[in-house]
Amino acid sequence: MASSFRVCKRGLRVRGTGGFLKGLQGSHTCLRRGVVTEAQALANRGKDDDHGPGDQEGFEAVQQERLAQAERSVLISCHSKTNEKRFLKYLSLHGDIQNSFFYDSYGTYAVVEFASPESVASLHKAVSIPAVNHESLVPFKSRLLSLRSLGAADRPTGQTGPQCRPQTAVPMNELIQTLSQEETIDQQVTCLTAAFQLTEENTRLRFLVCSLLRDIAASYFPECNVRPFGSSVNGFGKLGCDLDMFLDLDGISGRSLKMPNAGLALEYQMKRCNSERAVTQSILSVVGECVDRFGPGCVGVQKILNARCPLVRVAMKTSELLHLYGRLDGRVRGLVFAVRCWARAHAITSSVPGAWITNFSLTVMVLFFLQRRPAPVIPTLDHLHSLAGPADKSVIEGNDCTFVSDLSRITLQDNTETLEQLLRGFFDFYGSFQFGRMSISIRKGTEQNKPEVAPLHIQNPFETSLNVSKNVNGTQLDRFVALCQDAAWHLEQSAAGAPSAPPPQRGADTAPAPWGLAALLLPSQTAGVKGRRKQKRELASVRLKGLLESLKKNNNR
Amino acid sequence: MASSFRVCKRGLRVRGTGGFLKGLQGSHTCLRRGVVTEAQALANRGKDDDHGPGDQEGFEAVQQERLAQAERSVLISCHSKTNEKRFLKYLSLHGDIQNSFFYDSYGTYAVVEFASPESVASLHKAVSIPAVNHESLVPFKSRLLSLRSLGAADRPTGQTGPQCRPQTAVPMNELIQTLSQEETIDQQVTCLTAAFQLTEENTRLRFLVCSLLRDIAASYFPECNVRPFGSSVNGFGKLGCDLDMFLDLDGISGRSLKMPNAGLALEYQMKRCNSERAVTQSILSVVGECVDRFGPGCVGVQKILNARCPLVRVAMKTSELLHLYGRLDGRVRGLVFAVRCWARAHAITSSVPGAWITNFSLTVMVLFFLQRRPAPVIPTLDHLHSLAGPADKSVIEGNDCTFVSDLSRITLQDNTETLEQLLRGFFDFYGSFQFGRMSISIRKGTEQNKPEVAPLHIQNPFETSLNVSKNVNGTQLDRFVALCQDAAWHLEQSAAGAPSAPPPQRGADTAPAPWGLAALLLPSQTAGVKGRRKQKRELASVRLKGLLESLKKNNNR
Repeated sequence: MASSFRVCKRGLRVRGTGGFLKGLQGSHTCLRRGVVTEAQALANRGKDDDHGPGDQEGFEAVQQERLAQAERSVLISCHSKTNEKRFLKYLSLHGDIQNSFFYDSYGTYAVVEFASPESVASLHKAVSIPAVNHESLVPFKSRLLSLRSLGAADRPTGQTGPQCRPQTAVPMNELIQTLSQEETIDQQVTCLTAAFQLTEENTRLRFLVCSLLRDIAASYFPECNVRPFGSSVNGFGKLGCDLDMFLDLDGISGRSLKMPNAGLALEYQMKRCNSERAVTQSILSVVGECVDRFGPGCVGVQKILNARCPLVRVAMKTSELLHLYGRLDGRVRGLVFAVRCWARAHAITSSVPGAWITNFSLTVMVLFFLQRRPAPVIPTLDHLHSLAGPADKSVIEGNDCTFVSDLSRITLQDNTETLEQLLRGFFDFYGSFQFGRMSISIRKGTEQNKPEVAPLHIQNPFETSLNVSKNVNGTQLDRFVALCQDAAWHLEQSAAGAPSAPPPQRGADTAPAPWGLAALLLPSQTAGVKGRRKQKRELASVRLKGLLESLKKNNNR
Repeated sequence: MASSFRVCKRGLRVRGTGGFLKGLQGSHTCLRRGVVTEAQALANRGKDDDHGPGDQEGFEAVQQERLAQAERSVLISCHSKTNEKRFLKYLSLHGDIQNSFFYDSYGTYAVVEFASPESVASLHKAVSIPAVNHESLVPFKSRLLSLRSLGAADRPTGQTGPQCRPQTAVPMNELIQTLSQEETIDQQVTCLTAAFQLTEENTRLRFLVCSLLRDIAASYFPECNVRPFGSSVNGFGKLGCDLDMFLDLDGISGRSLKMPNAGLALEYQMKRCNSERAVTQSILSVVGECVDRFGPGCVGVQKILNARCPLVRVAMKTSELLHLYGRLDGRVRGLVFAVRCWARAHAITSSVPGAWITNFSLTVMVLFFLQRRPAPVIPTLDHLHSLAGPADKSVIEGNDCTFVSDLSRITLQDNTETLEQLLRGFFDFYGSFQFGRMSISIRKGTEQNKPEVAPLHIQNPFETSLNVSKNVNGTQLDRFVALCQDAAWHLEQSAAGAPSAPPPQRGADTAPAPWGLAALLLPSQTAGVKGRRKQKRELASVRLKGLLESLKKNNNR
């Protein structure tokens, strides 16, 4: 049954340069596809049936609910001074509104979720095709709408428009200023997490994008589904991160029809391809063409059909696992956000593919570190596996992806370390880790002997024979280690009341000097791996210089 | 109202290299699109409402009925030995079958038309997705199906399979043999027409292709229509001729919604393009991508989006006009088929674009010739215009396309010429036509002074400022004239009992020597324009040689 799983390894990158995709600013959209056989699908259905109502809060149930919300939602381009109350009253002519918010992204947009899907159908009947001069329209009707205010009396006046929810992370320099105003490193980590994590609204936008793309794919494959995976749903996504999507064709009927043993039977004539890859390419090519040609504000859709994608259903389970770890203890997400933000500031990670450490690798390293504390903050994956019930069983193409989904079955150890202690611990841990010999495995929660010669070896949690960080070269690993050592050194100084500690008295309107986590995010001067001492001196001098300048400002006032 | 018509001038050429498009062997499919405004659409609707039940046989009504037939039809790939009776009995489980036929095209296919569209929906529920090994399928469900016979008892045995209807024209050499067996030139023309004209089944296949493409376009534009025009419907189509199609987006709702004068209103966000052309390109690009990626047996779809197309709604009216002329007198179609076949045999026309005379030009030339007989066989377009009723009124972007649709209003003159006389008359007429000075106009039915310097000037019947044969160069026109003179000379000889007249006594199993129309179709030796006399001598010697050879055969028996 397990080996019957078949998978796509190709993706489509849809990059929006305007319009609704801009709501996920700087993001791109990676569509992937997996196909399981009927047997696997049946097994999954069986599993779902076992879920009691108490599991409603489970990962899968939440995903389904969000998809359903998205299907009842429309996205409306508005005037920045739109009268929110009148706007919502106008829309509620079509049915009760369950949720709505505004956001700003090269224009003001509203996402409106109706209580019932029928309201969307009712709304469609009242929407007109714009009358345009000197231009022509592609009359493709979607749930992307525009509001028009007609007549002088209804024009937006000087009143303030609706409050817009931010959909982008604050710039690094602003973040550094904000963090510097906090009083403890724990507060800084919490503040950073709050500033960077996906908001409820941004998550809704992501599911809406999935839903809109599903509409396109469902024109030809009515039973298909488009679901997000990866950082959009694993609890560790940052505002502006990629939206990975998964085109699910399992629901297509007609696979399960039994051929009679004798007599006549009819089959669909269908195009044959050499591989699932080729099938995926075909479908994503049409979807991409459609988005590019019909999608308002979507131009320059790139079809990257050759990119390697992971086993996508395993990737879905990985998202669920990370989500669970994030929910077990509030410090997990804080530490991951802090480490990832620090790594980005020092170009340890990058938005372009290369020999860099990825955010996923970093996240697994944080989880491993938390498992290695004297009193572990989180349990090992093997332990989560041992707690699993029958309904949790999941084997995907030979990979055992089983782990407990019911959080109440998990007993945590008593670890009371602060985020500051953990952050320093992380840098200490990896500043002196035996990368040359040892492999990182959150399944075992202990260092393993490296099975291969890659500079950095992080075992894939479910596809255990794979190295998550196979791409990382020695230079990048050395940089990471050196920067960990620097960060550890800095946090020690900070704890010992060194210059970068918070100035005891600050003027209310003066920007405080970066300290603690904020100081860790200051641009690094280390292009490569320099001598440890020289580097430390340089870093310290930069910090001193910054402090002097801020003091100078204070004197000048 | 008239000037509000907007049109596409781009097309998509879809060339099938297998599967269902092969049913239109050697054909290609040209999609074009036109858009009229609401006012025009309303005017058309008004027109339809005026049609009484007596107009049911009208061109438009027939087209609509054929489209409806096609939507109730499925195409099923069968075994060549399929038991037709059992096959139809099996299908009739889903509802009454109105019509069915088989044809052969790299495999045996059946077209089955149900009495009700619900039967197709019922059938879909019983159709399965094929189980394949070593290959993958694009799970796109269409009305292209395959029949499977299961179990030994049901395998096709040695019995004869269903009778297949031919979908291709007979090869020229076979046709020449067949024609040579006829006893009069009139019989030859009738025989040629019967062999070349579109069959009922081929017409059904063409509408089925439109309907299948409509399914694809309707996934995104539910109210759209795909209709054939040109030779597929004008009564002059030859088996294997191009299928020109027209993507009609007029029906799309939301254009007519009235914006309120005040308050709020919603519009669709739609992609804007610089021109209708660009819109058409977008839509056809997606449709083409879909056919290419999903269509079983469709590979190598070429998107020819830059080709110039005529005003497509005018082209529809032209199809209707030609259809009317063809119905007025049986000799019209006979003469057109004979002339076009002769022209093809001598490479006056060609399947590739160039400086050649087109079939459409030739058809207009035949019509003009028939209007110019001492007793005209058909009336002028101006006369048909004068007979039009209010419901016939049609002005398309300033072009008056009005003509009578009710045949009973047309009184024909008493012309009793035979097809032989008319054929000879055609060649005489154009062998000595004043092409240098005069223009051909079926609107006036008399030669007009040429308004421009093109070698051949044939006035477009509806877009009267345009020259249908603008592409034709002097060399091609000279060849045409020379070949007309040759054909006229040959037919005179034939009428005078010259060697190419039918041999008075033939053995029943002996291939008779080509004579009359058959002899006109023999390959021409004239590559360019040669001296008239020399050419005639050569042609005569070729014919004599052929006759001698056939006599030799007779002697050898």
